[in-house]
Amino acid sequence: MYGAGDVRVETVGDPGLVEPTDAVVRVARSAICGSDLWPYKQMEHTETGRRMGHEFIGVVEDAGDEVRTMKAGDLVVTPFVWSDGTCVFCREGLHTSCLNGGRYGLDGVDGGQGEAVRVPQADGTLVVLPVGPDDELMPSLLTLSDVMATGHYAALSAQVGPGKAVAVIGDGAVGLCGVLASRRLGAERIIILGRHAGRIALAEEFGATDVVSERGDEAVERVKELTDGLGAHSVLECVGHDQSTVTALEIVRAGGAVGRVGVPQSESIPHGVETFFKNVTVAGGPAPARAYIEELLPDVLEGRIEPGRVFDRVASLDDVPDGYRAMNEREALKVMIDL
Amino acid sequence: MYGAGDVRVETVGDPGLVEPTDAVVRVARSAICGSDLWPYKQMEHTETGRRMGHEFIGVVEDAGDEVRTMKAGDLVVTPFVWSDGTCVFCREGLHTSCLNGGRYGLDGVDGGQGEAVRVPQADGTLVVLPVGPDDELMPSLLTLSDVMATGHYAALSAQVGPGKAVAVIGDGAVGLCGVLASRRLGAERIIILGRHAGRIALAEEFGATDVVSERGDEAVERVKELTDGLGAHSVLECVGHDQSTVTALEIVRAGGAVGRVGVPQSESIPHGVETFFKNVTVAGGPAPARAYIEELLPDVLEGRIEPGRVFDRVASLDDVPDGYRAMNEREALKVMIDL
Repeated sequence: MYGAGDVRVETVGDPGLVEPTDAVVRVARSAICGSDLWPYKQMEHTETGRRMGHEFIGVVEDAGDEVRTMKAGDLVVTPFVWSDGTCVFCREGLHTSCLNGGRYGLDGVDGGQGEAVRVPQADGTLVVLPVGPDDELMPSLLTLSDVMATGHYAALSAQVGPGKAVAVIGDGAVGLCGVLASRRLGAERIIILGRHAGRIALAEEFGATDVVSERGDEAVERVKELTDGLGAHSVLECVGHDQSTVTALEIVRAGGAVGRVGVPQSESIPHGVETFFKNVTVAGGPAPARAYIEELLPDVLEGRIEPGRVFDRVASLDDVPDGYRAMNEREALKVMIDL
Repeated sequence: MYGAGDVRVETVGDPGLVEPTDAVVRVARSAICGSDLWPYKQMEHTETGRRMGHEFIGVVEDAGDEVRTMKAGDLVVTPFVWSDGTCVFCREGLHTSCLNGGRYGLDGVDGGQGEAVRVPQADGTLVVLPVGPDDELMPSLLTLSDVMATGHYAALSAQVGPGKAVAVIGDGAVGLCGVLASRRLGAERIIILGRHAGRIALAEEFGATDVVSERGDEAVERVKELTDGLGAHSVLECVGHDQSTVTALEIVRAGGAVGRVGVPQSESIPHGVETFFKNVTVAGGPAPARAYIEELLPDVLEGRIEPGRVFDRVASLDDVPDGYRAMNEREALKVMIDL
């Protein structure tokens, strides 16, 4: 990406092993992320460009001498950041804060929207998948890179559990995966707040029991009506805008929790006094996807969840620029790149 | 209290049973709370005055026909709000949000800084104590009304546990009880942030392993130095000022939690983006003391914790106005009223 709206497909040098902990992965499927749309909307023009993409599945082509958990030929999925798996944060399950980790597309590491990637800290980062690259489960497995893991983390942060009334704010791919995660964790009632007909229909197939298409005060009223006047135990904030954050804090009931996974637009969290007197917990952040891939994997492999249904368009590498356009214009929900 | 600085001891009518769920309690020990100092500092003058006090132990004098768990002669302790014990919030342990509960000193309910109190919803509110009113454990039992329960709730909200590095902001009675609660929950390191020599000494006796007397950026630096540069897993915010809230959010490490029990001075929570990218949890509020009295009681009865040491002054009823003055001028840490 060279700047806002300027995505180009270019030939670059082949990646190779640099560190003995690296693996080189030939990408089979990649994706465009909602977060890729921020630079697509507002990045300043640069001469050098920036490599994009942080969600992919691929086949290990080469692995460094110190890599133990995979070998050439293995199909692997990556979480959206790389991490060593051994530092104090990784051991606590917070791989996004890895002391020796980093992000794709930065500091000499390739982006995932390309043919091959050198993955640092391969053992700490990649998870070997027990299927082949042509398996029909590929779309769902690919969501473990980010959106399904993020929806799951939102649900955990919002303390979703059996018998709970859950509200999910946002009908993007993460919100839809939040619905799926909430159902998986046993939520009794799942209210989706959104207004895009196709996405709402998918939310209902994923387990949403109620739809609130209003916004602002009217949305708050509707959620209260649906929850005996008390509000939702668990609110998944999957947007990050000021308006959606205010709504999240207003529809959560006393003693409830808001799981934030939408990157916040503003520097401060509103309703600090109201949430105090309501004993509301605010949690979340960038999902440590690596901590959840192994837990979610059996449900995907055995077909109990199908998060891959959030992909409503498949693009070739050459189609990636148009994929950005389509997602930015909300014409596509989420684009999978088939290499 | 008739207004800021204007506390008077007056004779009022004796309380009697109104509802069959009431109990009338003759107060044995009461206390002045840090939160009583807010109206003491800034309440506008009123002609009618306001009854004060919400922490007390006393002997049941009379109990309504529907009261099942206590009888005349029983010694009881109250949490700082009354609650029915049966509503959806009480069943979830959030008695401060009881749908049929309320506060002492309001709506025809007596304040606790007096000779007798009509306690509504006695079964849901009061806990019978297996000791007599002259027992030497009375000061520690009295802290279960508020400060020890609040310190415990701050620690729970901050996810204190074995092996954790904990920082406690504030050397008032609640902060000191937060130290005690953190040690009780197995914290490995307990850093107290405060600068009052006598209170810091008590914090160390309660289990604080380190003292940070700096404020602002210097305090943040010191806590980081004490925690391998990472910050504290758990931060107990026991003040509520803007400065202390900022400090709390800056000294908490990635993946950590801030337990807020100081009533926030400001409407919004700062550092909303930084805490997002650090995956910090912000929790807390008014402590549902009733949920914790039975859990904390054995530790008090068997002498494993002595939170009553926060009382450094005993006053008669006539001395109460001077007790307010002494606490407000930080001459006394916490005043017990012996009736």
